[in-house]
Amino acid sequence: MTNPTQITAEPGRPFVDIVREFDAPVDAVFRAHTDPDLFARWTGPAQLTMEILAFDAVTGGQWQYVSRDPAGGRYGFRGVFHTVETDALIIQTFEYDGAPGEVSLGVARFEATDRGTRITTRSVFPSIEARDGMIASGMEHGATESYTRLDEVLTAVRL
Amino acid sequence: MTNPTQITAEPGRPFVDIVREFDAPVDAVFRAHTDPDLFARWTGPAQLTMEILAFDAVTGGQWQYVSRDPAGGRYGFRGVFHTVETDALIIQTFEYDGAPGEVSLGVARFEATDRGTRITTRSVFPSIEARDGMIASGMEHGATESYTRLDEVLTAVRL
Repeated sequence: MTNPTQITAEPGRPFVDIVREFDAPVDAVFRAHTDPDLFARWTGPAQLTMEILAFDAVTGGQWQYVSRDPAGGRYGFRGVFHTVETDALIIQTFEYDGAPGEVSLGVARFEATDRGTRITTRSVFPSIEARDGMIASGMEHGATESYTRLDEVLTAVRL
Repeated sequence: MTNPTQITAEPGRPFVDIVREFDAPVDAVFRAHTDPDLFARWTGPAQLTMEILAFDAVTGGQWQYVSRDPAGGRYGFRGVFHTVETDALIIQTFEYDGAPGEVSLGVARFEATDRGTRITTRSVFPSIEARDGMIASGMEHGATESYTRLDEVLTAVRL
């Protein structure tokens, strides 16, 4: 049983807001976002394999990974970390190589709650069309699936 | 006599779009955006002095500067370069230390025209309120003034 993933995408605005709670302490949830080995275990669809090419999760660092599907499809992603504040805040850019030059900004805030951790994210897209395209491509399902996988990683890490 | 600075900021959207032409070749205009000594000569209000602390204008590089007014006021800015493509494209983040955590994304495209260079920029703010605040703080006047100063730098560089 997992916690709900609340996703808000108002019409006519280039934002996607997601709120999700985790039954794990902030430091573990944050570490799953900044440790490349942990990050690769939960981000993206389960049937894709992720190869991390760079992942320097500090302010000013860069990240890059490639996801591959069983049919041989290859999806590249890269960005830079504008801010990484331990157990509190990650602000980073995001670009998919299938849409070059269309860069979004992601803000993720981490806070302790009675039950564990709440993550509040906002993705800011460079146009309404880019936001709508990301929604149409299945961002909602993808986020929910990734966070379900993150639950599993957090359980495994605590073992 | 300078070219007009076209600024568009639609209500209810977190974007500011600026288009400006320059009577100078693309490589000169681009260099004025990536050479820290040139950049410091035209960015921001004329009565402020800029001290550049970092300016690594390459993909993945960081930038940081401090502007000071005659009364002793200090305004710090920093960000990262997501993309720097010579004579074509700069995508970077932007944060003012008076509004920590409120990060915008700037996209600047450079193209050659019959008369010189056209720059088309989009600033993407993390909320409508952040965009409206930037407009209220005088972004329109600031952009126009900076680009007038850039005209002067471009004339001087060609001497």
